[in-house]
Parts: sequence; C-alpha cells; structure tokens
Amino acid sequence: MIYYTPPLAQLIDELKKIPGIGRKSAQRIAFYLFKIDKKNALALAEAIVQAREKIVYCSICNNISAVNPCEICSSSDRDGEKICVVEEPFNIYSIEKTGLFHGFYHVLLGNLSPIRGIGPDELRISGLIDRVRLGAFKEVILATSPTTEGSATAHYLTEILRRYKITISRIALGLPVGADLDYADEVTIAKAIEGRLQVT
Amino acid sequence: MIYYTPPLAQLIDELKKIPGIGRKSAQRIAFYLFKIDKKNALALAEAIVQAREKIVYCSICNNISAVNPCEICSSSDRDGEKICVVEEPFNIYSIEKTGLFHGFYHVLLGNLSPIRGIGPDELRISGLIDRVRLGAFKEVILATSPTTEGSATAHYLTEILRRYKITISRIALGLPVGADLDYADEVTIAKAIEGRLQVT
Repeated sequence: MIYYTPPLAQLIDELKKIPGIGRKSAQRIAFYLFKIDKKNALALAEAIVQAREKIVYCSICNNISAVNPCEICSSSDRDGEKICVVEEPFNIYSIEKTGLFHGFYHVLLGNLSPIRGIGPDELRISGLIDRVRLGAFKEVILATSPTTEGSATAHYLTEILRRYKITISRIALGLPVGADLDYADEVTIAKAIEGRLQVT
Repeated sequence: MIYYTPPLAQLIDELKKIPGIGRKSAQRIAFYLFKIDKKNALALAEAIVQAREKIVYCSICNNISAVNPCEICSSSDRDGEKICVVEEPFNIYSIEKTGLFHGFYHVLLGNLSPIRGIGPDELRISGLIDRVRLGAFKEVILATSPTTEGSATAHYLTEILRRYKITISRIALGLPVGADLDYADEVTIAKAIEGRLQVT
C-alpha cells in the first residue's frame, strides 16, 4: 500500500485539523489546490498569512479586525444606547446583515460550559460589565444561541446585569421563517406560542 | 452594515473558491484559523506552498507525487500484468487502502463530458493507449465511477482498447456493504442481480 507523497500528506494533515473537515474533505481540498493555478493556490496561503499577521481582537468589544478599536467600536454612526452580546465575532456579521441593529456589540468569545471547563472567567464578561456600568447603554440584547450553553450564558448574564439600571432583552425563540409546523420540535413550538405577538 | 475587515474578507474570498466550501464554511474556517496558534495557521499556509512547489504529475501515470516517476510507477514490487484506470489521483489512494490491487495505475485526470466540453483529447487517454500497446499488461481494470460520465468514459475506453490483446474489466456495480435493500434504487438493485456471483 502506497501512502500520499510527503508534501501532500503534510497538507492533508494540516487541513484535517480544521473542525468540520474530515479526511475526505481534506483530500478533496488538497487536490483542488493542486489542480488550480499555482498563483491561486499561493493566494490562499498568502491570505492566511496576511489574516494572521494583520487581524487583532478589538480591545473594546473583542470583535476581530485589522484596526483597534474595530470598525464598529470606532464608528460615530452607531446607536449608543444599545449593546448586543454575541458568542463569536462572526455572529456580528450575521446580525449586521439583517440591517436591523445599529448599536454596539460585545463578543464573549465562547459560552459557559461546565463540561468543557469554561466558566465566567474564561469568557470576556468583566469587560461587558465595565461597559454596561460606565457606558450610556440603555438596553443590552443577549444574542447567544438558544442552545443549552448559550441559554445558560444568557441566564448567567441576566443575573449579573440585573443590578444595573438597564433593560435586558433576549432574542426571540420561535419557528424559523419558512419552517413547517409539522416538522418543528415541541420545545420550539412552545416557545413560539409563549412569545406570540399580538397582531391586532 | 459593517463588512468583514479587509484581510479577513480576503481570506474568506479565497476559501470560498474551493468547491464544496460555501460562505458559512469559509467563514468558519477563517475564524478557526484566527483562533488557533499563529504557528499552526502559518503551518497550513506553508503546507499549501510546499505542496504546490514540490508536487508534480507523474509523467507515466499522471498521479501526483513529489518524485517523477511517482512512487508506484518506480516501484519494483508491483504486479506488472495489471493496470487500473482511474479518474483522479486520489482514487489511487482509495484503491490502495483496500490492499487488494498491486498493479499499476493510469490517471485520466477527469471523465468524458460533452456538456462540459471534455472530449477524449482533454483526458490522458493517449498515454494509456501507449502503455497498453507497448507494455506487458494482461488486464486493464476500468475503475472510473459508476456515474453517467464515468460509465461513458469506461465505455469509450472499452471500444478503444478492444483492438489490443488484453482483458478489459470493469469494477462491479451492486449494493454497498451495510446498505439496506429497502433504500437502494432500482438501477443499483438491477446491477446487483445482473452481477450476482455464484456461491456454491
């Protein structure tokens, strides 16, 4: 049995380390990178290097950015009364795409998870408390995912932030747009009924 | 609405070019590469560069390798009577893993596809004919995929190679191991019945 030629084996090994990329995907990507123009393959390598060299965590909100403070924290166009708490930097872009939120963000860089040994000290919670305490925010929107860990984190933050004179809100739970009620789980349906909005 | 900071946008753009990697996956990989040790992220970039710098197509079988001829073509341990025709280099490793084939390979680097404008001249068919004509092979195993294009390619090669004094075989079609007959399509079941092997 013949194994991959060394530089290819090395590339596949590095690709396999990426979560969600298994052996088959790593192999497919490696062969793709070999099939395309050398220029394009090297452009990917360079993009990785550049991203790692130039991107830093924003010292205010923990978003990732080429500038510090990040583009959002240094913007004068944002709504200074609202702050939205998310798990990871990419959640910011998902919310920005809705065009519905114009306030500031705070990235926790994770969720509470006793099983994985992640307690409040492992998350960027103290920075959030300082911002809420010293800032002019009137509402904090907890936008962690409605998973067990995300919900526990939101619950924990609610307890912590309750002492400040600020409105605390949680993103709505319910059926996703386009979903079929038949296929939704009971917990989601229950949340959708609990959170129902009056229309007339 | 805020867009990704430039080096991140660049990295996501490069990742999205990989087939099978959409926007979400590209985003996830980009953030992963930012979260891990800088050393590991740069190791991936370096592995891409090294793979592109060092790997070449084998001039005999079109496999990809750091040496030319490749490890298989230059081996003296292989069965010189059999040659297995595959679509892509990674198919070789899938077959090698079975440990059942010890002959040589020939990589076509694709399949016939009139829709995508890929005719016999776009594939490495002439090299295969030369090897069959001049070599000591007694059997050519057509191991292209049982897709429309892979089957058409196998059929075309059968017609071309028929004139040479060589056994032509095609990999078996049937139910994959562990499959449930209930869920198999009729064409596969038909092929499994046609290709049935006598057991006593």
